[in-house]
Amino acid sequence: MAKVVMKFGGTSVADLAYISKVANTIQTVVANNNQVIAIVSAMAGETNKLIDFVNHSSSFSDAREFDAVVSAGENVTAGLLTLALHKLNIPARSWQGWQVPVKTNSIHGAARLVDIETHNLEAKFSEGMKVAVVAGFQGVSKENRITTLGRGGSDLTAVAFAAKFKCAHCDIFTDVDGVYTADPRIVYRARKLNRIAYEEMLELASLGAKVLQTRSVELAMAEKVPVYVRSSFSDNQGTLVCEEDERMEKRTITGVASSRNEAKLTVISVADRPGIAAKIFGKLSESGIVVDMIVQNISEDNRTDITFSCPTEDADKAEKVLLESRTDGLVNFQDIVQDKNVCKVSVVGIGMRSQSGVASQMFSILANEGINIKVISTSEIKISVLIDRKYMELAVQALHDNFNLHSNWATQHNE
Amino acid sequence: MAKVVMKFGGTSVADLAYISKVANTIQTVVANNNQVIAIVSAMAGETNKLIDFVNHSSSFSDAREFDAVVSAGENVTAGLLTLALHKLNIPARSWQGWQVPVKTNSIHGAARLVDIETHNLEAKFSEGMKVAVVAGFQGVSKENRITTLGRGGSDLTAVAFAAKFKCAHCDIFTDVDGVYTADPRIVYRARKLNRIAYEEMLELASLGAKVLQTRSVELAMAEKVPVYVRSSFSDNQGTLVCEEDERMEKRTITGVASSRNEAKLTVISVADRPGIAAKIFGKLSESGIVVDMIVQNISEDNRTDITFSCPTEDADKAEKVLLESRTDGLVNFQDIVQDKNVCKVSVVGIGMRSQSGVASQMFSILANEGINIKVISTSEIKISVLIDRKYMELAVQALHDNFNLHSNWATQHNE
Repeated sequence: MAKVVMKFGGTSVADLAYISKVANTIQTVVANNNQVIAIVSAMAGETNKLIDFVNHSSSFSDAREFDAVVSAGENVTAGLLTLALHKLNIPARSWQGWQVPVKTNSIHGAARLVDIETHNLEAKFSEGMKVAVVAGFQGVSKENRITTLGRGGSDLTAVAFAAKFKCAHCDIFTDVDGVYTADPRIVYRARKLNRIAYEEMLELASLGAKVLQTRSVELAMAEKVPVYVRSSFSDNQGTLVCEEDERMEKRTITGVASSRNEAKLTVISVADRPGIAAKIFGKLSESGIVVDMIVQNISEDNRTDITFSCPTEDADKAEKVLLESRTDGLVNFQDIVQDKNVCKVSVVGIGMRSQSGVASQMFSILANEGINIKVISTSEIKISVLIDRKYMELAVQALHDNFNLHSNWATQHNE
Repeated sequence: MAKVVMKFGGTSVADLAYISKVANTIQTVVANNNQVIAIVSAMAGETNKLIDFVNHSSSFSDAREFDAVVSAGENVTAGLLTLALHKLNIPARSWQGWQVPVKTNSIHGAARLVDIETHNLEAKFSEGMKVAVVAGFQGVSKENRITTLGRGGSDLTAVAFAAKFKCAHCDIFTDVDGVYTADPRIVYRARKLNRIAYEEMLELASLGAKVLQTRSVELAMAEKVPVYVRSSFSDNQGTLVCEEDERMEKRTITGVASSRNEAKLTVISVADRPGIAAKIFGKLSESGIVVDMIVQNISEDNRTDITFSCPTEDADKAEKVLLESRTDGLVNFQDIVQDKNVCKVSVVGIGMRSQSGVASQMFSILANEGINIKVISTSEIKISVLIDRKYMELAVQALHDNFNLHSNWATQHNE
């Protein structure tokens, strides 16, 4: 008898009718002689309601109490789904994080998994339990306090259970039916990918394609757990996130990602000597500002300009932090220039590793559309550019068209 | 440093503003050099919402899953109150049932307390914790499953903590400001009692004066824990539920209770031989029907009539059960007569023990109003009658007036 992990997100368990539908989905899998570990999120909206409660309760909230409160939503779903399974005569029981137990460290609100004990679940499986319904997103610290794994933590719970119980794959049921070559709201010919490599998914996840939580993809990659993303609301084929294979390597580009939430800051005329960049970005990091792209121009007269990007909402804070550093004499520069009217467009693909010329091809496509590139940053399997925000849709469409991401060729080689 | 238990019901923690007010109430007690164990219910309406979810999930619900779901509300309140206390710089932490742990048996939905471990809380108190905020109504079974104590279970949690931690008293904050001589909605001169004996409170609680859960009063009596009932919403003096003393014995009657939810059934011409009553009431008990008063009339020709009362909603079921028993040949009788238009009115008082004539006095008062008594039942400190429902308010007012429950005399002797 094989074990399967099935994870259901908040929109998939939004009300009792949906929960009942989820029970039917599980029933089919149990009928095929599987034991199921079902990981559930809170009913859509519940966790946000609880977070609002906490935020209004105290301005300096204790993360341990935050976790005690916000973990309640998953517990409710776990019990309700178990009852829906009982209605179908399926032997099931609910498991809260501390009952499994799902052991984590004590960094409340963003805990790291330490271990998942298997013997309690295994004992119940051997007594005839067919479905273990596990409250996702939560665990227990060695101090016996409830912890949560951070936003999207149920994905991480699911992948961790699949790894620990040596499941063949981990199925993530969500409100989209897979990973696309581009945002279908921007590119109407965007095509659903049947397969995507972990590395590609990681680049896409960190670029804002919010299908899977980044940490869950990292864990899946490390533990070699194939993750199958599919819709709760249709029987359409989903997308398998897995190790790269020959088929993937044949495609140059897998997808085009875009993010509107970017700001560009340029620190003008910084002294060009060792340690200056470390001081600037150390200061920003201390202030909790996540810097994404960094570019340093050629130095003239021992002065240089440093440009970086960060989320739009952090731009003013970043400027303030750097101006204060100048006042304190930590860094010396002439001026800071902000640009909040930018966006980031990226092409991602495993195939890029073995194919040169992708960058120049991308720049030509954008140039042909008259789009000026402001900042460029590259990794082994990704090229990102900052451009004027008003060109975002145009750029994504042009890249998708010119890299032939909609084509049958890609589909044929993608099965 | 003394320890105090303070329990806050659902209406006292109905929203964040109320929870913040509760934190202020606790602050005053902490400032007087006390350590506080605060027992909290779910925010008003939350538990009912969760129960509705469960009831709609499955017709044959698993009580273990019921408990896993409905205990969520108390956990949320516990965390939120802790955060509100932190805002006042009071060292506090939340405790879910399994964290204390509050050990119970495995009768889910109506679990019995087995033990409350004190060492975890004591350790935190000695480290400087001033307030332990405990989720009421819940515990953990030896199978490590979450249990709940049944309706009103947070009162029981509060009394049990007060007993276990040897607190001087247990304060129950609720939405009424104490126990009255009668329902103030019926008798406008109803007077708040400053003190009432456990036994009296037990009779009143079981009669539907829903100020305190019955089991919590039984435990308080057994463990000699004084329970102080008071309002969350005013500083008015409340009612102390405690051991009887001289002052109480001087009053003949402490209060008049009434209950509208009563039905009377008479089983006509039952064979009057040993074991018949056991068969009838055994059958009803098996069917989950709670029979209250039982009266057997004088036998004629070896046949007798047996009359009993039960909650109105169980009357039809009781009739059906007995008719089936007759079909099965278990009991033999001629007919069953139902009367759903009755109510129960009772007078309760410790003083009755040493004073005869209370019953005849009560019957005269009712007779003077032209009220016919249908069934009478008495205990050591209580006399109950079933009468036509339309006379309920009249009967309660007449008894309250004629026993002088509003009078200064009683007040003077009641301080």
